[in-house]
Amino acid sequence: MSINPNITTISQTWTTESGFEFSSVDIAWNSWGELNAKRDNVILICHALTGHSDAKEWFSGLFVDGGIVDPAKHFVLCINNIGSCYGSTGPTSIYPFSGKPYQADFPQITIRDMVRFQQLLLDDLGITNIELAIGGSMGGMIALEFALMDQRVQSIALMAMGMAHSPWAIGISHAQRQAIFADKNWNNGFFDEAHSPEQGLAAARALAMITYRSSNDYESKFGRSLQPEKDSFQVESYLEYQGKKLSQRFDANSYVRLSQAMDSHDVSRNRDSYQTVLGNQTKPALVLGIDSDLLYPIHEQKELADLMPNSSFETIYSQKGHDAFLIEFDQINTHLSTFFNTLSKL
Amino acid sequence: MSINPNITTISQTWTTESGFEFSSVDIAWNSWGELNAKRDNVILICHALTGHSDAKEWFSGLFVDGGIVDPAKHFVLCINNIGSCYGSTGPTSIYPFSGKPYQADFPQITIRDMVRFQQLLLDDLGITNIELAIGGSMGGMIALEFALMDQRVQSIALMAMGMAHSPWAIGISHAQRQAIFADKNWNNGFFDEAHSPEQGLAAARALAMITYRSSNDYESKFGRSLQPEKDSFQVESYLEYQGKKLSQRFDANSYVRLSQAMDSHDVSRNRDSYQTVLGNQTKPALVLGIDSDLLYPIHEQKELADLMPNSSFETIYSQKGHDAFLIEFDQINTHLSTFFNTLSKL
Repeated sequence: MSINPNITTISQTWTTESGFEFSSVDIAWNSWGELNAKRDNVILICHALTGHSDAKEWFSGLFVDGGIVDPAKHFVLCINNIGSCYGSTGPTSIYPFSGKPYQADFPQITIRDMVRFQQLLLDDLGITNIELAIGGSMGGMIALEFALMDQRVQSIALMAMGMAHSPWAIGISHAQRQAIFADKNWNNGFFDEAHSPEQGLAAARALAMITYRSSNDYESKFGRSLQPEKDSFQVESYLEYQGKKLSQRFDANSYVRLSQAMDSHDVSRNRDSYQTVLGNQTKPALVLGIDSDLLYPIHEQKELADLMPNSSFETIYSQKGHDAFLIEFDQINTHLSTFFNTLSKL
Repeated sequence: MSINPNITTISQTWTTESGFEFSSVDIAWNSWGELNAKRDNVILICHALTGHSDAKEWFSGLFVDGGIVDPAKHFVLCINNIGSCYGSTGPTSIYPFSGKPYQADFPQITIRDMVRFQQLLLDDLGITNIELAIGGSMGGMIALEFALMDQRVQSIALMAMGMAHSPWAIGISHAQRQAIFADKNWNNGFFDEAHSPEQGLAAARALAMITYRSSNDYESKFGRSLQPEKDSFQVESYLEYQGKKLSQRFDANSYVRLSQAMDSHDVSRNRDSYQTVLGNQTKPALVLGIDSDLLYPIHEQKELADLMPNSSFETIYSQKGHDAFLIEFDQINTHLSTFFNTLSKL
């Protein structure tokens, strides 16, 4: 993976919702296209849990001719979230207080912290207007909070999430963290980086990979065949491989903090009822739900769309489950184009 | 939990499908009612993954006046499965070869081994006929294999499982085992019993508890409320409690071996096609599927019933997910009674 992000250091005190003070933060970001003179031609892409700022890598299907993510017209921007491990300040960054990586001293953060963190860069770049903020899963939570928190955001496209992290999704997060915490190398988050809690993180990933798909998808993808020369089923080798792959590219403390941030997602928190908060969210919104999403069942997206007065809801038909927001680009592009064309006529 | 099973020791060589030889085995069992002179009035209850032979404890709703599980008429029998930790030979039993508990030296077993193990006791008790074998989840897999392997079984009632463990269910098993294997105390299964892999087993249980229910059930059971005096959500406290509870009552090696046995479930293995094997299973069969079962989706039960010529399929309507086979006793009893009444008229 070669992300090569820009790194912008903001040397000012920045405080999380939980009250932790950073004396300065690094913000990693990628962009495509040019910011125009008015600095108002921005499309902001928000990434998901284990993602990074090179959106062209994981959202490739949106960077297509005739698509709405068009660097010839827009300044397309993607910012690595705080707490991640792809260039922005996170648990693997050096804690000035100790001179060592933060690890578990890295504070709990929220989806709203992620918005406020991204705003530091938007301000630094002098961006005055965001035509569209788009994201799926955690990225959708960020895009939704952006609409609520930042007047510059004109419209949003949200995929595969809801107005709050449900007890169901929190339970799934929790089980994953428990697997990490059980790991022999975890040491309350202060592990030796040469001996990281790889097995626990891999187990967490295996569990996550199940909730990202559907039983029908697994049925058609894997048989009950045993792997040659191994006493395990194909699906086991696949999950083991996926687990190892993640544990080699991702930090366990980042995984814990970002999954906790997702659990914090709740647009009503310290505000008002869902009805009031979302009823006041009058910016145009496209909400896409996936019919086989196990993690954020489609009724959550319908509910979200129902409560926002200027929104439209569309279904992505797929057996790929939650992951469909990273796969079913034909359907996503069709709905995005229709939405964007309607916007431009407003 | 006070099970107080009978323990029958069978002092003869008994070999698993994998070729492991036991010089003798202990079989733990509970029964209700009297075996008649012909020894043919038996109802056999088969337990699930973490269950035990005291069926009246976990299947209480079946032991009701007017129900088919009637100790006044039947000899109701439940046998603890081999590999478990409730009295029958399993990983916590003493390995004569080493004089210490088997732990990870305990061999891999299959659902068919479980049937063959139970047959040792049936033979010892001189049982000539089993009117009905009933079970849900792993218990259903055992009951189905019993019908295929033992002429004494006259009819079966199967709940919440399929003709084979699907790649989906195997993946879920796998992720659970990975969490156990990551535990700091695991030591390849040869752990100090005073320091068992409790956290890994608890994480596995938390994951399992999610797949045993449904998002709607969690939604109505838990809010997003934080626990007073704790920085965690209600659902987290619940899963943590459930995880700890299991890790205090269950052995990690048993969990691994029994979950692997479930993965082995496949009525076609070393036999013939599903169509042929199940087409030849002409004993009356009731198949109950749960409309919200995430682990063994209802289409698996429909498929099973479709392939057995003398079967009927009924739906349990519930938002409790897979666990409904241990909860929705009114519906289960209704279908069982209808099924049993039809049988007695044959």
